[in-house]
Amino acid sequence: MYSFKNDYSEGAHPQILNTLVDTNLVQEEGYGEDRYSLEAAELLKKKMACSDVAVHFLTGGTQTNMIAIAAFLRPHEAAIAAHTGHINVHETGAIEATGHKVLAVSSGKDGKLTVAGIQAMLDAHPDEHMVKPKLVYISDTTENGAVYTKSELEALSSFCKSHQLYLYLDGARLGSALSSPVNDLELSDLPKLVDAFYIGGTKNGALLGEALVICNDALKEDFRYLMKQKGAMLAKGRLTGIQFLVLFRDDLYSDLAAHANAMAFKLSKAIQDAGYAFLTPPVSNQIFPILPHDVIEQLRRQFYFYDWEQIDADHSAVRLVTSWATKEEAVDAFIETLKAKAVN
Amino acid sequence: MYSFKNDYSEGAHPQILNTLVDTNLVQEEGYGEDRYSLEAAELLKKKMACSDVAVHFLTGGTQTNMIAIAAFLRPHEAAIAAHTGHINVHETGAIEATGHKVLAVSSGKDGKLTVAGIQAMLDAHPDEHMVKPKLVYISDTTENGAVYTKSELEALSSFCKSHQLYLYLDGARLGSALSSPVNDLELSDLPKLVDAFYIGGTKNGALLGEALVICNDALKEDFRYLMKQKGAMLAKGRLTGIQFLVLFRDDLYSDLAAHANAMAFKLSKAIQDAGYAFLTPPVSNQIFPILPHDVIEQLRRQFYFYDWEQIDADHSAVRLVTSWATKEEAVDAFIETLKAKAVN
Amino acid sequence: MYSFKNDYSEGAHPQILNTLVDTNLVQEEGYGEDRYSLEAAELLKKKMACSDVAVHFLTGGTQTNMIAIAAFLRPHEAAIAAHTGHINVHETGAIEATGHKVLAVSSGKDGKLTVAGIQAMLDAHPDEHMVKPKLVYISDTTENGAVYTKSELEALSSFCKSHQLYLYLDGARLGSALSSPVNDLELSDLPKLVDAFYIGGTKNGALLGEALVICNDALKEDFRYLMKQKGAMLAKGRLTGIQFLVLFRDDLYSDLAAHANAMAFKLSKAIQDAGYAFLTPPVSNQIFPILPHDVIEQLRRQFYFYDWEQIDADHSAVRLVTSWATKEEAVDAFIETLKAKAVN
Amino acid sequence: MYSFKNDYSEGAHPQILNTLVDTNLVQEEGYGEDRYSLEAAELLKKKMACSDVAVHFLTGGTQTNMIAIAAFLRPHEAAIAAHTGHINVHETGAIEATGHKVLAVSSGKDGKLTVAGIQAMLDAHPDEHMVKPKLVYISDTTENGAVYTKSELEALSSFCKSHQLYLYLDGARLGSALSSPVNDLELSDLPKLVDAFYIGGTKNGALLGEALVICNDALKEDFRYLMKQKGAMLAKGRLTGIQFLVLFRDDLYSDLAAHANAMAFKLSKAIQDAGYAFLTPPVSNQIFPILPHDVIEQLRRQFYFYDWEQIDADHSAVRLVTSWATKEEAVDAFIETLKAKAVN
Repeated sequence: MYSFKNDYSEGAHPQILNTLVDTNLVQEEGYGEDRYSLEAAELLKKKMACSDVAVHFLTGGTQTNMIAIAAFLRPHEAAIAAHTGHINVHETGAIEATGHKVLAVSSGKDGKLTVAGIQAMLDAHPDEHMVKPKLVYISDTTENGAVYTKSELEALSSFCKSHQLYLYLDGARLGSALSSPVNDLELSDLPKLVDAFYIGGTKNGALLGEALVICNDALKEDFRYLMKQKGAMLAKGRLTGIQFLVLFRDDLYSDLAAHANAMAFKLSKAIQDAGYAFLTPPVSNQIFPILPHDVIEQLRRQFYFYDWEQIDADHSAVRLVTSWATKEEAVDAFIETLKAKAVN
Repeated sequence: MYSFKNDYSEGAHPQILNTLVDTNLVQEEGYGEDRYSLEAAELLKKKMACSDVAVHFLTGGTQTNMIAIAAFLRPHEAAIAAHTGHINVHETGAIEATGHKVLAVSSGKDGKLTVAGIQAMLDAHPDEHMVKPKLVYISDTTENGAVYTKSELEALSSFCKSHQLYLYLDGARLGSALSSPVNDLELSDLPKLVDAFYIGGTKNGALLGEALVICNDALKEDFRYLMKQKGAMLAKGRLTGIQFLVLFRDDLYSDLAAHANAMAFKLSKAIQDAGYAFLTPPVSNQIFPILPHDVIEQLRRQFYFYDWEQIDADHSAVRLVTSWATKEEAVDAFIETLKAKAVN
Repeated sequence: MYSFKNDYSEGAHPQILNTLVDTNLVQEEGYGEDRYSLEAAELLKKKMACSDVAVHFLTGGTQTNMIAIAAFLRPHEAAIAAHTGHINVHETGAIEATGHKVLAVSSGKDGKLTVAGIQAMLDAHPDEHMVKPKLVYISDTTENGAVYTKSELEALSSFCKSHQLYLYLDGARLGSALSSPVNDLELSDLPKLVDAFYIGGTKNGALLGEALVICNDALKEDFRYLMKQKGAMLAKGRLTGIQFLVLFRDDLYSDLAAHANAMAFKLSKAIQDAGYAFLTPPVSNQIFPILPHDVIEQLRRQFYFYDWEQIDADHSAVRLVTSWATKEEAVDAFIETLKAKAVN
Repeated sequence: MYSFKNDYSEGAHPQILNTLVDTNLVQEEGYGEDRYSLEAAELLKKKMACSDVAVHFLTGGTQTNMIAIAAFLRPHEAAIAAHTGHINVHETGAIEATGHKVLAVSSGKDGKLTVAGIQAMLDAHPDEHMVKPKLVYISDTTENGAVYTKSELEALSSFCKSHQLYLYLDGARLGSALSSPVNDLELSDLPKLVDAFYIGGTKNGALLGEALVICNDALKEDFRYLMKQKGAMLAKGRLTGIQFLVLFRDDLYSDLAAHANAMAFKLSKAIQDAGYAFLTPPVSNQIFPILPHDVIEQLRRQFYFYDWEQIDADHSAVRLVTSWATKEEAVDAFIETLKAKAVN
């Protein structure tokens, strides 16, 4: 049995483990002040061509979202997100647990937020009897595997700036987004367009680790206090620092994402060739083919994957996720099974 | 330069890294439901000779304390701690950030709580105009390196039970405590005496990881919701599970603690032999010798360590911390320098 | 100009003010332990024919909802409400500020929750990656002036009991609900059907004051701690106690609500007679007639009221609210203007 | 039996009740936007000779402290208070419930904070492993009835300004403080010296009501959102507005405080004449005479008051509180009893 359930089923890229082994007994400062973390932060700034951002390493997406949003907002301020947004659905109310309402905008199948959706939410919150929308949360790729184009992000950015809203981008799968054929953003565009974002490591080859990048000066102050307070400052901060150093010292980060995408596209092409449609266009490492139930049953004997949405009596969309670690043989085997079943 | 600043200056014990490497590409369930985490939890229960506890793996002490206390208390309930307690001083108000007051009892040099101190705090909080003390927080070893005896812990336990107080033990340095010559507790005593405690991995050979053990049935419900909500549930939960599996499948956990203690006692004995006293008795991997300022200056040229407390115009207590990774040559070099200076 | 904007434009019923004057210089215990508050609590229990409820007096609806929900829920638990529910929209995120997500169910025009809506929300929250729905919030009358029937409330109650959900009823306008011609509930039914509810005073003749009734034993413990902690315990608790004593020692509470309803129905009948429809059936002290824009403009010269919703290019629904203090002459004048305009 | 237990045993000054009656049926805007509240805010600004402060009316001291501090601080910031400070002891952890630690400075018998005490607290909080002290909380009069002199307040103010600390003054008993013979502050001094303070109404003749004055521009933004969110915005805001209008349109506020103080001083003088000492100098409406136990027992047959502190086997300090409503005959009766007993 092979799993296409998610992009965190394996450990870390071997280069990461090797470097952890190589540096293991060097004595370092604790709590993120080790030389690896400091170097990794500098390296990321270089890769972004932007020296005046603050970079902090955290251990997961929920933690990063929760601490960033708690650090940025005053008690009555709220975050706007797509109704499918991770902070709205899949973080056990982490944002609300820090006191802030998440205002959910009904978004399309792609899970993207639009200026119109944000404007409608602003219109619905005119005074102090309601929360004050203050931060716009988006993710790239979205929960549904869609990728923001540069012009889409520019539109959001410009709207947010002119409406005193912070724009925050959840990059749990930023690697896959930036490596997508439909992407026209560079990493170096992000600091100009958003107030803060994070570069996801966990889902792109790290054991754990997200690099939060705070671009807006007004949001930088005392961030390490917040990290410590929320239990996010690792005594051995080297663990995340080293991983980002390895991911970014060469092109490993984008190579791994490119592999994940290539595997997804190989699957997509075969699925399309077999005559099946998709719930949303397959453009990143999460794809959502619509398959007949008997095909699904057949595939399920060899592969793990999640049901996503029933389409009609005979068809459902499923979610297939590839990763830096996905083996091409597994992809080929999946395709074989699909074709064999399709032929019948 | 060699550091005696803390017990988290190095990475992890090589066996841990090796096992991470060996298991790296096995596909596993996420979020703590991988087979390693499940096995590690079972293993810990066996080591505690207690099958009806709940075991959860978290990434650090502040995170563990914060989530456990937030999970256990209602909004108006407070935690009692020694004024030197980690939750009172060194967690950036993590407990208060979840809404709960920490009631600080003035404790002695050893940082221990006593029944008398807790009783005084109860007496001072008679009604609803004040918070309701509900949980007693202790750490073993304490912040000051002291170790609770079995009878001390039994006294606290019995008092807490009869006063409807939860007793929670922070075991960031539980390894060192249980390996101390003044210790008479077994790991298997703890589930009988406390409502919850954690076994610290970060400071005893792990990259990161604390194993929270919830003993009181009433406190177990839905704990994983709290972990997720506070950003503590790792997508690759295998990372902590594997580490505890390695630490406990043989006696590595106690061996590493024994080494840390042995290094501390070698230091202590030499310091004593050189005629110096201690702020508190040296019984664990943190020791607090009182040294003349010129000796401190001489040592500081070769070693990193923290100043702790000025004693008089010429003397200060310093803190020396040893760990699983402390090299005996470094200890010997420290002793040499000390003796050489003492001779002068 | 006369206002039909809300039911809190005037002070208090004169009997209340008179009793405040009469008792003014009697010395009493503070913080809700005065004899008036104690008597008022007993009186309410008698009126409910239920001695084993706990009664607490608070100063407003948001405060009552916020403290009750914060007292009842653990950190990961959430409240289900209609998307139009007061806690979801008009309380500036008060519930979220205590850490709890509000799960909004799309409800119909009447603003009622149904078993189907709650069930769908439970289905959407299967595990610990999401909040755990635990409390169902309804209001009677709803935000849109609708009134729950006994069988509707019994259905919700039975569903909640069988799904371990607390049922909480916001009775800001409970007086108007219980006096509605479509109502078949008695005050004494409520303790059997809900876990907690409050009897609104502010919108039915009091200067301020809501009586929270906690029916479920498991939710009673230490509630006064929560009140104090959230700033809701008045030093001169007599102020709310006296008001509820006056409202309930005879039938003033229902008389005032009956007057408010009667004024609303006089308006409704005239509006209907003039040929206009309503957004929702006019059954309580909030009515929502759909009027042509020119009629609205004409009325607006003499009366204050809120626009509610545009219906088409020429028509909008407006909200008219009557109260214990609404003068019949004002109602007659409104009707005159409406008829005069309609005739044109 | 007559009570000297506190200054909130009676209702409100008759002028307040009369004005409530007189204005009762005037229709007004809700939520603090009625003309009385607006006028009262303007009036207070005039009395303070300061037009650029923001004035908000709340219902009690705990509520005011909690909302102000929650509005002013970021999550990692803490309030410094005397260990006897109301927020540290008597508010059921209200500040912590909003996420902020209260750092308690051991203060003298008078309950005053000093620059030295604050400096020591800053020194103890050097980095992000600890909370960041950001707000200094004082009360005038203090919990122990002491009164800050202008030079003491200037010293605190100047220190806070130069250390980026907010200075917040709890004026629950500000009336008594400003009317004290040892006071040399004017109401108009306060906006220059503190960042925010409140003028207590509840303990000086109002049914309920505190007027929060925010002086620092940076702390004013969106304060009404916070009030609404914490359940502090009264639908009938006129209730607090009218009371402050009555208290300040002439000199009622200071007259009432002067009466309370005069009654306290009449008691003090007689107690002194009878040969008894005080725990702290009697300078406001709370006095703490040290009396023999048999005298206390005798007085207790006719009067209610609180025990405060046992001094030795035969003597205790008690607390006597006078108010705007204290009857001189009761004071005389107390003195009679005291003298009669003393003579024996």
